[in-house]
Amino acid sequence: MFDPRNLRTAVATDIHQFSTDPARPMWLACLEWPGVVGLEGHSDADVAAHAVADAILIASGVGELGSVFGVDRPEFAGASGARLLGEAARLVREAGWEIVNASVQIIGPKPRFSPRKAEAEAAMSEVLGAPCSVSATTTDHLGFPGRGEGLAALASALVYQQ
Amino acid sequence: MFDPRNLRTAVATDIHQFSTDPARPMWLACLEWPGVVGLEGHSDADVAAHAVADAILIASGVGELGSVFGVDRPEFAGASGARLLGEAARLVREAGWEIVNASVQIIGPKPRFSPRKAEAEAAMSEVLGAPCSVSATTTDHLGFPGRGEGLAALASALVYQQ
Amino acid sequence: MFDPRNLRTAVATDIHQFSTDPARPMWLACLEWPGVVGLEGHSDADVAAHAVADAILIASGVGELGSVFGVDRPEFAGASGARLLGEAARLVREAGWEIVNASVQIIGPKPRFSPRKAEAEAAMSEVLGAPCSVSATTTDHLGFPGRGEGLAALASALVYQQ
Repeated sequence: MFDPRNLRTAVATDIHQFSTDPARPMWLACLEWPGVVGLEGHSDADVAAHAVADAILIASGVGELGSVFGVDRPEFAGASGARLLGEAARLVREAGWEIVNASVQIIGPKPRFSPRKAEAEAAMSEVLGAPCSVSATTTDHLGFPGRGEGLAALASALVYQQ
Repeated sequence: MFDPRNLRTAVATDIHQFSTDPARPMWLACLEWPGVVGLEGHSDADVAAHAVADAILIASGVGELGSVFGVDRPEFAGASGARLLGEAARLVREAGWEIVNASVQIIGPKPRFSPRKAEAEAAMSEVLGAPCSVSATTTDHLGFPGRGEGLAALASALVYQQ
Repeated sequence: MFDPRNLRTAVATDIHQFSTDPARPMWLACLEWPGVVGLEGHSDADVAAHAVADAILIASGVGELGSVFGVDRPEFAGASGARLLGEAARLVREAGWEIVNASVQIIGPKPRFSPRKAEAEAAMSEVLGAPCSVSATTTDHLGFPGRGEGLAALASALVYQQ
């Protein structure tokens, strides 16, 4: 018998600056985006993968990105967003939760997202092991995304436990 | 028998600048707001209706606002937020999803929302065909909404499939 | 028999400036943070408690923070975030809703959150009467949180009715 009290939702954001190094690769939604200057960070700075990883960790109460992959697990230093997301999903399931779905909206002026939307959703859903919608929007030139300073990602997750 | 794996949630934002044209009408949450300068955009720039439309499209995996009402459907060029929201809801249902509820929070200094909250919720819920909470908040003078440059809307949606 | 149409989700934000008064206490997630300059506001400006209170009020359709605790209820003028959250939860349950869970992400550079994460989650969950995940993130120096002007909180809530 399904008990709705076993559902959990959460939302999470991730934000990174664009790099000042024109050779820095852009990783976003578990894909590389050739010809686009990447985001700065110790890892690949994949804001979409990070935001979804955080949303599932937070929804399930397993933790949050910073603590789960912090100093205690040096093997994840510099890990790709895809690797962090896959490991977060594994930890969430290990704790007894099923991941129902996640969504993430990338907020900023580039890269031009729509031509690779299907590919990004396939990559993220594969790593997550559950449906993951990925979309993008701009801010009508407002705020730090509008000034081209960085990208934000806004994610949601729904998980449950039998 | 209800299967929680048939639920989906998503979040979405929409942002538009205030117009520099003092005669530009303000449309927000499917209502006109006389005496308030409107938001700029090709359409009526109704950030609340757009954010909810995007949230239901993203939750159901049907698409996103930009792609669904893009160049392939010129009959929606310049369409009102209410029309886009109604059509998004129709497409989501046509794809086999029931819309459980949506919420949207308008973030910015004006219009003064609370006197028309009930009217806005009735208008949005009617167009959506499901309960839609509409609220408003300010940013304590911070960021682009605090500088009066534009409005943001933050929406969530919950949908499911039998 | 569980009917998924009785579920409701919502998201909500709250934002406050850091005080210019170095003696202003910081209240965040129902905890006091000694040694950290607080947020400005008529109340204790606890953005995490406020955002969760707003999310449960909005999800359930009971109202929103500003209207529920506005001029009609002067006994809540200047009330703590914990008191507002507790009363919001009471009102939501009085209206026939069960609170399944809430989450809130604090967005900004301080206080250093992770050492008190478990304590913050215990405090918020106790007041809410339901599981409440509390996490924190930074904005990579971008936007008003990155400039140290204030804190934002982003909350989600899931409620249902039998």
